[in-house]
Amino acid sequence: MEIKSYTIELINMIREKSPLIHNITNFVVMNSSANILLAIGASPVMAHCRSEVEEMTSIAGALVLNIGTVQEDWTESMICAAKTANSKGIPVILDPVGAGATKLRSETVERILKETKISVLRGNASEIFSLASSEVKTRGVDSSLLITSDHIDIAKEIANDFKCIIAISGEEDLITDGNQVLRVANGHPLMTRVTGTGCGLTAVTAAFCAVAGEKLLEATTSAFAFYGLCAEKAVITSDNPGSFSVAFLDALYSIENEDISTFIKVRKG
Amino acid sequence: MEIKSYTIELINMIREKSPLIHNITNFVVMNSSANILLAIGASPVMAHCRSEVEEMTSIAGALVLNIGTVQEDWTESMICAAKTANSKGIPVILDPVGAGATKLRSETVERILKETKISVLRGNASEIFSLASSEVKTRGVDSSLLITSDHIDIAKEIANDFKCIIAISGEEDLITDGNQVLRVANGHPLMTRVTGTGCGLTAVTAAFCAVAGEKLLEATTSAFAFYGLCAEKAVITSDNPGSFSVAFLDALYSIENEDISTFIKVRKG
Amino acid sequence: MEIKSYTIELINMIREKSPLIHNITNFVVMNSSANILLAIGASPVMAHCRSEVEEMTSIAGALVLNIGTVQEDWTESMICAAKTANSKGIPVILDPVGAGATKLRSETVERILKETKISVLRGNASEIFSLASSEVKTRGVDSSLLITSDHIDIAKEIANDFKCIIAISGEEDLITDGNQVLRVANGHPLMTRVTGTGCGLTAVTAAFCAVAGEKLLEATTSAFAFYGLCAEKAVITSDNPGSFSVAFLDALYSIENEDISTFIKVRKG
Repeated sequence: MEIKSYTIELINMIREKSPLIHNITNFVVMNSSANILLAIGASPVMAHCRSEVEEMTSIAGALVLNIGTVQEDWTESMICAAKTANSKGIPVILDPVGAGATKLRSETVERILKETKISVLRGNASEIFSLASSEVKTRGVDSSLLITSDHIDIAKEIANDFKCIIAISGEEDLITDGNQVLRVANGHPLMTRVTGTGCGLTAVTAAFCAVAGEKLLEATTSAFAFYGLCAEKAVITSDNPGSFSVAFLDALYSIENEDISTFIKVRKG
Repeated sequence: MEIKSYTIELINMIREKSPLIHNITNFVVMNSSANILLAIGASPVMAHCRSEVEEMTSIAGALVLNIGTVQEDWTESMICAAKTANSKGIPVILDPVGAGATKLRSETVERILKETKISVLRGNASEIFSLASSEVKTRGVDSSLLITSDHIDIAKEIANDFKCIIAISGEEDLITDGNQVLRVANGHPLMTRVTGTGCGLTAVTAAFCAVAGEKLLEATTSAFAFYGLCAEKAVITSDNPGSFSVAFLDALYSIENEDISTFIKVRKG
Repeated sequence: MEIKSYTIELINMIREKSPLIHNITNFVVMNSSANILLAIGASPVMAHCRSEVEEMTSIAGALVLNIGTVQEDWTESMICAAKTANSKGIPVILDPVGAGATKLRSETVERILKETKISVLRGNASEIFSLASSEVKTRGVDSSLLITSDHIDIAKEIANDFKCIIAISGEEDLITDGNQVLRVANGHPLMTRVTGTGCGLTAVTAAFCAVAGEKLLEATTSAFAFYGLCAEKAVITSDNPGSFSVAFLDALYSIENEDISTFIKVRKG
């Protein structure tokens, strides 16, 4: 399938249908993720209270779980929301912020992955690889930004272990369902100097999956390429992080189909 | 009374007196509401802990309650803070974010309205109309953006039921105390593509009410017209959401009396 | 020691080493503090859950405690994190937001100061002076923005009482370790119209202390001068708060050594 035309199709559907994206996310990025989702045409809602998450997820097009400032009662809400999503066929996108850095974060991600079905797991290499089996870890994981054939093998193993799509952000992004592998070369290093850009990509991936039906590998790849391309467009306006992040929201809102067909950089393998 | 000159009077008082606005609000908009209040010259404080809300409300000029990311212990704090405000004659502005979407949100708003006295209830049509009596609901409420005579009747009924001002944001805003009706035609659709613009208007309404004394219907109308006009000014700078929201803060800070007298669009009925 | 060259040395070290700054901070500024830290080259992490704070602090270069939207369980986490930092020689920077305004806030700060060792206490005059001994308070503290010799004496007393550096933001900033006194004249009044600028300075002070080793008085002074100078640079771009805060992030990221050597205004006494 042609990712360029699919990306255009999906972003047009988001702008037209304005899917509701239910976010149980961290305090740092609630505002920025909401603005990113609004800019692409989606409808964000943030709701974390155990008493309402099931109801909220039920009316959503996709669910975002993000453990960035996690605490125990929020984990319970995430699991309840994810179970609701699972029972209704609503895609669930998990961002394992800081997995590997503390025991709480690693265990929270492991518990969510064990008790619920995640559609897409999106993070950076060190977060994702921290979830590899201990056998893999013993082999040693180099979480540098460049993708090696080792990285691809481990990403595929994790995808197969958890039966989900693994999407790793880096200099080149790596997306796999355990079988096919796609790489995205869009994006810009300045994104790492603005908080919430990774979490924002998780939210955008959710919006793309909300309108995509079954083709989540392609939808995730489209989200990554679209998002990275908007960053490239923004950096033309400014290579300073304050102005860049303003221009990035503008680009997410106004990027045109022609830019998407011309500048998206996706390859297989 | 002339709303234009009253708006100028109130914004000048806010800039001069810098009223303290106590916000018990949602996680998504804490930062943006604080910046909006600072831009117009008010002093925001966010405090939600049961142990301090009464003390904080006591020294405030107005209290904002916003249920956007509500959880049970925050509701208790909201009710304690509102009771303190009631006992001291401090205006309380309630934003029923998401009322009607989940049972928790609807019940939270109903409980606050039952146990405390709200001065102004500000939301969009679907949120406000979700609070109508079941008799009204049975008649059917069309929460489209255009104001019909049905809308006006229901808004008046809700205002009379809860003895508060009802302020509904829409393409044209509708403000009523159950008797008089005022409409504001300022504003811009791009506001719906930036998170927290509605919640920000609730906070601005609180600041206008803090300096207004008894005339809360006119103060609320002034706040809506002022806020909408600043959005119109901002969209001249940019019609993309990132740049727009920056220009909007700039306009809230720097808009001049002449713009207010010339461009405010308020009418009766 | 020459503060100008030391400031350049420290900011270069931050950009090179990217120290991890662990923030247990308030909901309003989590996003802005993260962006401010990223702009200067540091690596922010926000984590407040009792189950992970010790682990997170252990791997950090400095710890920020900020009581802006405090609640009791967060205070426990702050104290645990600070004890961990103390045991490992990691600097702890405390921002007593709203101390003096409510009993909860004053008692929280007093408890943290009693149970842990704080390296730098940064706030405005009214917050800091609210922590003076009752004997001092009886003498009367005028918390105006201008520094009097009375202010200097009280600041020194507080520094000696708590064996920490006292850093007071104002029209001219006052920094003392109880013995030496340094003043910084950089900054701009527009900073008071943007939320989180004070909290952002606390975070920047933490980053400077993280790379400074023992010289925390000088590092704190450098942080204040650097930060104030970036605000002066930003206000050249815009004197409206929305655009100013964007330009401020840009300046924090891109300010050059030559600006620092030329425009920093620090004096002794």
